[in-house]
Amino acid sequence: MSRAAGIPAAVRLREVGPRDGFQNEPEVIATDDKVRLVEMLARTGVRRLEVTSFVRADVIPQLADGGEVLERAEIPAEVAVSVLIPNERGLEAALEVRDRIDEVNVFLSASETHNRHNVNRSVAESLSGLERVIGRAGGEGLRVEGVISTSFGCPYEGEVAPERVLEIAAALAAAGASEVGFGDTTGMANPIQVREFFERAAAELPGVELTAHFHNTRGQGLANVLAALEAGCASYESSFGELGGCPVPPGATGNIASEDLVSMLDGMGVETGVSLESLLAAAREAQRVLGRPLGSHTLVAGAVEWEPR
Amino acid sequence: MSRAAGIPAAVRLREVGPRDGFQNEPEVIATDDKVRLVEMLARTGVRRLEVTSFVRADVIPQLADGGEVLERAEIPAEVAVSVLIPNERGLEAALEVRDRIDEVNVFLSASETHNRHNVNRSVAESLSGLERVIGRAGGEGLRVEGVISTSFGCPYEGEVAPERVLEIAAALAAAGASEVGFGDTTGMANPIQVREFFERAAAELPGVELTAHFHNTRGQGLANVLAALEAGCASYESSFGELGGCPVPPGATGNIASEDLVSMLDGMGVETGVSLESLLAAAREAQRVLGRPLGSHTLVAGAVEWEPR
Repeated sequence: MSRAAGIPAAVRLREVGPRDGFQNEPEVIATDDKVRLVEMLARTGVRRLEVTSFVRADVIPQLADGGEVLERAEIPAEVAVSVLIPNERGLEAALEVRDRIDEVNVFLSASETHNRHNVNRSVAESLSGLERVIGRAGGEGLRVEGVISTSFGCPYEGEVAPERVLEIAAALAAAGASEVGFGDTTGMANPIQVREFFERAAAELPGVELTAHFHNTRGQGLANVLAALEAGCASYESSFGELGGCPVPPGATGNIASEDLVSMLDGMGVETGVSLESLLAAAREAQRVLGRPLGSHTLVAGAVEWEPR
Repeated sequence: MSRAAGIPAAVRLREVGPRDGFQNEPEVIATDDKVRLVEMLARTGVRRLEVTSFVRADVIPQLADGGEVLERAEIPAEVAVSVLIPNERGLEAALEVRDRIDEVNVFLSASETHNRHNVNRSVAESLSGLERVIGRAGGEGLRVEGVISTSFGCPYEGEVAPERVLEIAAALAAAGASEVGFGDTTGMANPIQVREFFERAAAELPGVELTAHFHNTRGQGLANVLAALEAGCASYESSFGELGGCPVPPGATGNIASEDLVSMLDGMGVETGVSLESLLAAAREAQRVLGRPLGSHTLVAGAVEWEPR
């Protein structure tokens, strides 16, 4: 299948399931299982893997063993390992395993209400703290992605002005983030909005890697990927097994499923480097570990096969 | 939200859940429940509703009460009621409730192997039979949609040549079908293929209404809708609650969810005439009747609401 004009020939994918997925599980997953799943993901061909986060263990006990997972998991050198950190204390924890990581991901929300709900600070306070974290991480040789939640809408405030999102993105880039991720945290984005946003972001933020982080909350995640592709966006985040979720609204799903994303990109002839079969094997193993059916469609249906009978 | 250039301002939706969904339920749904659900759907604002099919009751016992459902359901006059019929015998059954229906939908597959599995005939035999059925239905004043299954790929044969699909579509139109639906029966289509196909179909089949019937088997259904919209396609079929399925591969989901489709189109500013809240109410009622969680994402997450707090 030939690609359409304008769509990137290849994209970069970051698998975020071990962080964004595992942190949303009601039961803490055993460290052995995490290590095995991380190793399976690291061998799928994906080049970026968010393995864990360094947050307070009393807030997210699901990832309290992040350091141990990082120490134990055998990850090929070509895979860039990242961890999510909320603040300077998170960075200090990450620096204790400095030799195991390549990137740190910092985050804040574009909307005041969501940011206050999430980290109990104003956006300006978050930004000012993160600027210090980004500078220090850069000094340690770590690459930094800044992630902006609620970039396409806020469940509390409604519409979020793209100007505001781009202003925050520019501040993160100026502080030293080489990549900025735009999160559709509660699945409110629509494809027209996404295409316009990424076209504008590319024009206003030259030299910054722009990453789309879509949720499939209302089933539109891959349509939003298509819209972002059409705007030239070449970097995506997703979660194997459609793991992950979001407390608002209750029961809603989170990230787009990595398998569904890779299945679509394979069909479109967009290079990902990821083996869909290896990814499906990892998702099947996650399903076994968690003991419940996961939401990824391709996990049920299997890869498209051209099998003449 | 303003629409992007090229995307239709309004689209026509046909709700196919009472046929494509109910026929795939392992338990036969009670006639009373069917009537109530059909009436709820008929009051959502949708203008086209596929209520049932007239097929052999020993083949699809789930829809054996189709005539009774049609007789009993109170459906506003502005809703075009259609039934699926496989052959002349189906048409005769439909004509027994002629005053209750506006359209008949006939079907065949684009690939020989799938057609033989499905109706035990060659494509040429199917086409020749359907040409007679279409002519006779037209003579009775019924509008006809011809649906071509496996238009974007066949689970048995693999790739399906678009030339072949368009040739069948032209034959159906020549026989009198005013609308041709293109089914992605097992969810093999990708957005680039879809866009190219609908651009070509519009050029080669002027004056024929072209309808996209996507399945969400691998999670790409709404991305394919976006691609079809970009090619100017303004007619879609979907199923409330993501009801429906497909025996190949086992356990796979079927149609795209009407709620997810309407949620996306609402966000994009594409007019559907459908009230998302009424549609969600119908899907919630289906969930109650069936006693299991349905696959529609918006059914879990709810409509996007801009609620400042």
